[in-house]
Amino acid sequence: MVLDQRKLPNEEIWLSCDSVEEMWVYIHELATRGAPLIGCSAALALAFYAIHHSPSKSQLIAKAEYLKTSRPTAVNLMYACDLISQYSNPMADFSVGSVVDIAFNILQREINMSQNMATHGDSLIQPQENILTHCNTGSLATLGLGTALGVIKLSHSKKKNIHVYVDETRPLLQGARLTTWELKRAGIPYTLICDNMAATLMRAGKINRVFVGADRIALNGDFANKIGTYSVAVLAKYHNVPFHVVAPVSTVDFNCATGGDIPIEERKSEEVEGALGHRWATKGSPVFNPSFDITPASLVTSWVLDTALYNQKQVIHQQIFKSLAPTTSKL
Amino acid sequence: MVLDQRKLPNEEIWLSCDSVEEMWVYIHELATRGAPLIGCSAALALAFYAIHHSPSKSQLIAKAEYLKTSRPTAVNLMYACDLISQYSNPMADFSVGSVVDIAFNILQREINMSQNMATHGDSLIQPQENILTHCNTGSLATLGLGTALGVIKLSHSKKKNIHVYVDETRPLLQGARLTTWELKRAGIPYTLICDNMAATLMRAGKINRVFVGADRIALNGDFANKIGTYSVAVLAKYHNVPFHVVAPVSTVDFNCATGGDIPIEERKSEEVEGALGHRWATKGSPVFNPSFDITPASLVTSWVLDTALYNQKQVIHQQIFKSLAPTTSKL
Repeated sequence: MVLDQRKLPNEEIWLSCDSVEEMWVYIHELATRGAPLIGCSAALALAFYAIHHSPSKSQLIAKAEYLKTSRPTAVNLMYACDLISQYSNPMADFSVGSVVDIAFNILQREINMSQNMATHGDSLIQPQENILTHCNTGSLATLGLGTALGVIKLSHSKKKNIHVYVDETRPLLQGARLTTWELKRAGIPYTLICDNMAATLMRAGKINRVFVGADRIALNGDFANKIGTYSVAVLAKYHNVPFHVVAPVSTVDFNCATGGDIPIEERKSEEVEGALGHRWATKGSPVFNPSFDITPASLVTSWVLDTALYNQKQVIHQQIFKSLAPTTSKL
Repeated sequence: MVLDQRKLPNEEIWLSCDSVEEMWVYIHELATRGAPLIGCSAALALAFYAIHHSPSKSQLIAKAEYLKTSRPTAVNLMYACDLISQYSNPMADFSVGSVVDIAFNILQREINMSQNMATHGDSLIQPQENILTHCNTGSLATLGLGTALGVIKLSHSKKKNIHVYVDETRPLLQGARLTTWELKRAGIPYTLICDNMAATLMRAGKINRVFVGADRIALNGDFANKIGTYSVAVLAKYHNVPFHVVAPVSTVDFNCATGGDIPIEERKSEEVEGALGHRWATKGSPVFNPSFDITPASLVTSWVLDTALYNQKQVIHQQIFKSLAPTTSKL
């Protein structure tokens, strides 16, 4: 079952998912979203397929390759699909049970990583701080606590009296719709703003730090995240506000040298012409609608990974990220 | 008659306006908007009142003071109302005819200033440039060509083959609704973006310069403009993109020393919770909704005024702006 995030917060609708093809559509259309969660969604869809169809190795690999085309930017999707392909590849090991095991390993690993990231990120937060976040990076985007929002939730649970400014995150409004929904349910004080209001808050000294997630991290530390993240990073730099990226190691693309190598998804113009089915722009307006932007490593104050907290000063990105590359023995 | 800008571009509705009280509501609710235009709207409403009610001086001044409370930030409104109060004050001069004359002088002056600003601003633009603009500053916001958009229109008419990136301008979407409407009618090539996409375009070298308007300029050169302007100014500075402010002298507040003295209007939370009557945010979300922000003078590359073009390097704001202060003899 997939919670339809396009309908939140007004409606809570669960969609049944019985095939890889259905999951492809749900991921493509953002019914399920968030870099870690779409990796897990893909893993579960492949496990479900393995159980119900007892496919040959090549059939399973074909389905995994197909699922990878549902969205281009978040690497967790590629990572999960590749892991399942890779494990089912060696002659001896392949079985339905092993595919299911891998899928559940991926899920359990994401949950554990969420907890570790939250612990590392929470160590940065002082009592009474005002924190800005962009997009949605909570339980709706991951398994477990979340990435950036997971840090915030843990700090709140430690009674640090924090307050969160939530970027609405145009065009798809994941902040206004999803992050506010999670914060309200968790009882965490927050204020919703339009994306263009963060700068004036920073100038007024009302934002102590920024936490964002990541959809793909290159080996040099450049990273892709929801459109608008780069804008926030520049504004934070200008105002000397610390800017923290929270991501599991599954977000690092060990085949990607720099941000320039990360493919950026461009989406339909309707998303910018209006919202949720309502159009307000002049009919026939040409539109630019990248779903992500690239933030250079130089704007990152610290990396909050599941493995450790790295401050920018100590970071030699290539070395750190390469050292984190998974080996088959780690799973 | 007032063109209802809340309904554009989907509907073109003209509202009749028979009283100062009606105009107060139209200005307050943004049926008519744009700093120069609300000054002119107020002047016409007071002239209409003078014609139909032959008021005493104190009655006219009371109406002018009342109209000034319809919106707090744009100084053109105060300027127009004060001019009419001031001129009707001296015993000898007061007549219905003189009030009407002043109102039409204000209108004619705005039209002339638009033309002069456009000429000064156009001198900055090279052929083939990509120009970013924020909010709406065209014929819908002024009389005549406009401020920032007036510059763009004149450059286009000179066949410079320019292209415009239009910030949608949340929350009230003046860019998406009004600027696209004007650009399309004028046949000027443009691309609509969400406010949080400008930074990634600047990083890619796709924006050559920024033109914005102003709602109030302080004597030290700090200025108030539509929320999001300060964000664009910081991003432009970071990316070495020239940032130009286009405004008539009627936007300078000669009683205002710095940006800190400019009152900032905060508006209803519904505007951020959704758009055009559709709500998408989680119910009961606390909201921050300033209608304007303050950009410090240090981020301005040049001032495109009706009187002259001033580059930042040559600007001693106090001197320049004080020298522009109107005297009664100028009208």
